[in-house]
Amino acid sequence: MGKASLDCEHTLALAVREAAGEPCPPLLAKALDYAVFPGGARVRPRLCLAVALANGNSEPRLASAAASAIELLHCASLVHDDLPCFDDAIERRGKPSLHAAFGERIAVLAGDALIVAAFQQLSQLGSRLSHPVRLATVTGIVARGVGGPMGICAGQAWECEARVDLEHYHRSKTGALFVAATTAGAASAGVDPASWRQLGESIGEAYQVADDIQDAVADPDVIGKPTGIDVALDRPSAVRELGLEGAVKRLERCIEEGLDSIPDCEGSALLRKVVQAQSNRFFPQGIKHSAA
Amino acid sequence: MGKASLDCEHTLALAVREAAGEPCPPLLAKALDYAVFPGGARVRPRLCLAVALANGNSEPRLASAAASAIELLHCASLVHDDLPCFDDAIERRGKPSLHAAFGERIAVLAGDALIVAAFQQLSQLGSRLSHPVRLATVTGIVARGVGGPMGICAGQAWECEARVDLEHYHRSKTGALFVAATTAGAASAGVDPASWRQLGESIGEAYQVADDIQDAVADPDVIGKPTGIDVALDRPSAVRELGLEGAVKRLERCIEEGLDSIPDCEGSALLRKVVQAQSNRFFPQGIKHSAA
Repeated sequence: MGKASLDCEHTLALAVREAAGEPCPPLLAKALDYAVFPGGARVRPRLCLAVALANGNSEPRLASAAASAIELLHCASLVHDDLPCFDDAIERRGKPSLHAAFGERIAVLAGDALIVAAFQQLSQLGSRLSHPVRLATVTGIVARGVGGPMGICAGQAWECEARVDLEHYHRSKTGALFVAATTAGAASAGVDPASWRQLGESIGEAYQVADDIQDAVADPDVIGKPTGIDVALDRPSAVRELGLEGAVKRLERCIEEGLDSIPDCEGSALLRKVVQAQSNRFFPQGIKHSAA
Repeated sequence: MGKASLDCEHTLALAVREAAGEPCPPLLAKALDYAVFPGGARVRPRLCLAVALANGNSEPRLASAAASAIELLHCASLVHDDLPCFDDAIERRGKPSLHAAFGERIAVLAGDALIVAAFQQLSQLGSRLSHPVRLATVTGIVARGVGGPMGICAGQAWECEARVDLEHYHRSKTGALFVAATTAGAASAGVDPASWRQLGESIGEAYQVADDIQDAVADPDVIGKPTGIDVALDRPSAVRELGLEGAVKRLERCIEEGLDSIPDCEGSALLRKVVQAQSNRFFPQGIKHSAA
């Protein structure tokens, strides 16, 4: 389970090249590339691939396609999230947000095209798998992580309600795609996805809390996007709810719960190390991590 | 090949119920239903089902799911098309457009969730098919009809370019989903999709020309949406290019080309009748159809 095998850049590049190839209109083509490269930490696809590897990775193409589909869907959600009608963010990953660079229309279309590209890429595996029946299972898992009633779209839609169900809000806005990552990784390797749900939920919650902490304390120049959004938009946040110290404690507990939930499997010891290493990045610089 | 068997309302209702079920946020749930029901003429799914039936329809669940997926994607494109940054349309199908009724944020999310629902619905067939290998083929066909480089998203993105490639613009904005309808119908029945491409292209072009004619001459109260958009937004249009009479002639030629392209198959005679009947609806009231 070497470092290189958690890398999905090549699969992502193929998917973008396909969606943005001839005769794609030039602006949309550029925007698709801009939305995906250079990437962030690629936390979700790495988690997906790490779970597949820990379980023997008996269908590596499917695991790669699932990981890459999940990242494409994540990128799509960032593009639509940044739109003027939502966060109205002008910066993302240290560069202008997509709509700031290409206009609002191309941003809507690029998000749409990335969602389609995610499923197109999975469908292309078609008859090229040793276990073709896993394809539909994995595709369904990925779809549930992003659509209604409890994928990212649903999570984002809670922000439009007068009364927010906080648990469903966080679970769907952030948790759902992490759950998709762990369960799709398991399903691609032919393992029961259900026992890998908890890892996704815990790491998803950890990520959400880490994001709230970052929004409250990080330096915008360091993280490449504006901060203070939660307070400005009056959004629920772990820091607003628990204070900074309480939020850091919850973050630590989520990571531990995630690690404890990892089922016995061939590569569980190595997987624990990968999850631990990824999770350490959730702590912004200057925030003390008691286990560090 | 009775009339009832071209109906996809039930499959559509199941897909929407699934995407909008508990614990979907209430506004998004309502918006998903609002975007799909009551529908328009359902031209694309009817065409898809008619082609499947003409070819023996040996995998009827797949044909239904494909037809319904294509309609969900069409509805998604209408919702995003109507957004303020595109057509800024306040009416659609005789009622307020989705963003006019639910706000812009819910409109973006509803479109996204409908795209996902289309693929989720296909993936759910999973192992329930007699010919499971057809699922990935059909899913790929549907994806190509809507994403980049030449699906609906690409077509819409041509509107953002300084120089528009008119052929690619029409082929992708309108034609691609019609091609998806005919070829997915064929592929779901286990028939080579390539020989069903031309029917989709011709009917797609006919539909585009009919839309241009409608935009130029129809009564907004009758068709339930504003007219005169092409001139107002300086968009290419068959009427602007050829005049009204020339556009009607082209419409007639497209329909004939489509009918002539229908390959020999079990149900080709009945299929011709269905296509002819559907196409007659492309002529707005008051426009003489020389073959009528």
